[in-house]
Amino acid sequence: MSFQLKYNGTLWMEIDGEPVLGPGRVELLERIQQTGSIRQAAIQMEMSYRQAWQMVDHMNSHLIEPVVISYRGGKGGGNAEVTKKGEDAIKQFKAFHIRFHQLLTEQSKHINL
Amino acid sequence: MSFQLKYNGTLWMEIDGEPVLGPGRVELLERIQQTGSIRQAAIQMEMSYRQAWQMVDHMNSHLIEPVVISYRGGKGGGNAEVTKKGEDAIKQFKAFHIRFHQLLTEQSKHINL
Repeated sequence: MSFQLKYNGTLWMEIDGEPVLGPGRVELLERIQQTGSIRQAAIQMEMSYRQAWQMVDHMNSHLIEPVVISYRGGKGGGNAEVTKKGEDAIKQFKAFHIRFHQLLTEQSKHINL
Repeated sequence: MSFQLKYNGTLWMEIDGEPVLGPGRVELLERIQQTGSIRQAAIQMEMSYRQAWQMVDHMNSHLIEPVVISYRGGKGGGNAEVTKKGEDAIKQFKAFHIRFHQLLTEQSKHINL
């Protein structure tokens, strides 16, 4: 039978009801880590540089310490670096996100409808 | 310090990627249970009768058995009854939804950013 009812969901971190970090932003941070560039990360994620920069700025201004430090100018339009705090954010969010999806999968087995 | 980073999320049941049951629909089912009327439930939730009826129809047509049986006509424009299957859907979803929110609260304590 192809009928397959399952749980799904989304997960994010927020401050005072304001979403600050979710799967998309974690992916953005990881791509900044890999490329050393907000611009390259934006291209890979098919978003505008402006959009990516605004996400980074939003995270930086809402967390106690910045998650990305960027340097303007130079070849390729500057570099960006994910901070230790940013690495911690990636690590903590991903760990819980994986656990959350394991729970969804596990709980889906118990749906009896 | 007012700075308070925490996890939040949403949860739903889906079939083949199509969302079928979430907190809003569970509330609709509960209000139908309480009032015996899709129309009254819709009014309580400040949605149109059409919208409520479409939600019920969507659930009924995507699950093996209907969650609501409605009777047209009569005083007040017909009655509606949540089936045993609908009761099970409410119960199972709410139990997991509560557990999910407990997990969010618990895990929020371990955020270290």
